Amino acid sequence: MANSIISCEIELEAPFFDVDLMEIVWHGHYAKYFELARCALLDKIGYGYMAMRDSGYSWPIIDLRIRYAKPIHFNQKIIVQAHLVEWQNRLKINYQIIDKTTHTRLTKGYTSQVAVDLSSQEMCYESPAILWQKLGLQKP
Amino acid sequence: MANSIISCEIELEAPFFDVDLMEIVWHGHYAKYFELARCALLDKIGYGYMAMRDSGYSWPIIDLRIRYAKPIHFNQKIIVQAHLVEWQNRLKINYQIIDKTTHTRLTKGYTSQVAVDLSSQEMCYESPAILWQKLGLQKP
Amino acid sequence: MANSIISCEIELEAPFFDVDLMEIVWHGHYAKYFELARCALLDKIGYGYMAMRDSGYSWPIIDLRIRYAKPIHFNQKIIVQAHLVEWQNRLKINYQIIDKTTHTRLTKGYTSQVAVDLSSQEMCYESPAILWQKLGLQKP
Amino acid sequence: MANSIISCEIELEAPFFDVDLMEIVWHGHYAKYFELARCALLDKIGYGYMAMRDSGYSWPIIDLRIRYAKPIHFNQKIIVQAHLVEWQNRLKINYQIIDKTTHTRLTKGYTSQVAVDLSSQEMCYESPAILWQKLGLQKP
Repeated sequence: MANSIISCEIELEAPFFDVDLMEIVWHGHYAKYFELARCALLDKIGYGYMAMRDSGYSWPIIDLRIRYAKPIHFNQKIIVQAHLVEWQNRLKINYQIIDKTTHTRLTKGYTSQVAVDLSSQEMCYESPAILWQKLGLQKP
Repeated sequence: MANSIISCEIELEAPFFDVDLMEIVWHGHYAKYFELARCALLDKIGYGYMAMRDSGYSWPIIDLRIRYAKPIHFNQKIIVQAHLVEWQNRLKINYQIIDKTTHTRLTKGYTSQVAVDLSSQEMCYESPAILWQKLGLQKP
Repeated sequence: MANSIISCEIELEAPFFDVDLMEIVWHGHYAKYFELARCALLDKIGYGYMAMRDSGYSWPIIDLRIRYAKPIHFNQKIIVQAHLVEWQNRLKINYQIIDKTTHTRLTKGYTSQVAVDLSSQEMCYESPAILWQKLGLQKP
Repeated sequence: MANSIISCEIELEAPFFDVDLMEIVWHGHYAKYFELARCALLDKIGYGYMAMRDSGYSWPIIDLRIRYAKPIHFNQKIIVQAHLVEWQNRLKINYQIIDKTTHTRLTKGYTSQVAVDLSSQEMCYESPAILWQKLGLQKP
């Protein structure tokens, strides 16, 4: 993805307990698959959940969008890709889920997160310096 | 909501097992809250999951959006409102989650579903007659 | 239940997202149903999760047993009963799940919890005085 | 384990969405970890969920026991071991969860399953021939 500063992908197999009686993965479980890819991406820059908290910020999800193109079945092997596309004011990550075997795209979506200062509980209108630093960038 | 043909609301209390270590409901669980309100709305018109399947159609979710304005805490009493806003070609439902005590809006979002013919597994480009009938409407 | 000092029951309807492709509630979800009944019971004596933490103790589950006699189906209305049966050294709660309509017993089980002192992280070999007090009993 | 006819182990990392506000994995999620190990074990003998259904039997869980010795924390790497210990009349599998780094035992437990004939919906008092065959054993 051209405008992605950092990317990450993980592999999964759809577990039995995520499959509903229509014999497909229940749509609400995809948020877990996105999160696993997002955690892998954030760990890659050394800014996972615990590093976030240690830096004095939480980064709650403020927006989630999931577009389901094709269903995922029990035991299906999938790849979840996460691409960081915005970081200046919020952390926006795009996702794609593709079938591991055929490389067909099954799902796309995104999440947005904003920094919240843990001492004041105030939302930050710009991403704090620590995020730029973790990304190896100079905050302008 | 002016353009909603039918609405429904349910009450919930955020359970312990939905709360994460940031002490708020983990964002992925909201899909369950939306679904409980959607099921209540669809039951109201006699077109819940089982009636859908009996009518020869599944109605998979093809789009989910959730915008988180304020967090939900453990034991917080919330109201989840569902409003049916489109039905001609797809089933689009808008949601709002509000705090039961203060009536502050916490979340809004929507889901879109399309009919899939269970015999052919083909997606329908128009909602089938059965949906109109359940809504008490004449398909034009 | 003769030897239960305090009891509580809640009503539930099995939600779609708890049902697996065998068209029954996936066995792992029962821990949530037990917890909802346990929380209701503990709230009744003013010693829910938050009160526990405020009292300086956590009460982790150390043992869980679930015996599944009959399956629970989508939308089935159930009653979950919780009975406090031990409190001197640990908190043991027995559960029964019965069908709301027929009163057939579907499931039984129990959980055991022990107090852990939050300051020392030590497990307590006897339940602390605060539990006896909440139960309206004199610790011998 | 001396009396285990077949064993299997999987590795996991405790995901954020399984961790509760006490900052440990919520006890109800362990049923998923056991299931992942059980599925791996059953796949090893070619008798996973789908093969079970194709063989004309479902194998519902009738008993689950989990004993929690030490908590699991966010991101903790764990190994889940499954040992098949009974198969004549029911399928009993023992589990252990150990820390991947220290090999400390964190949890032990078991599940029991019985065959249910899918055509008659009758529970089988003996395991059907297909299970023995999958185990490479002669039914006496």
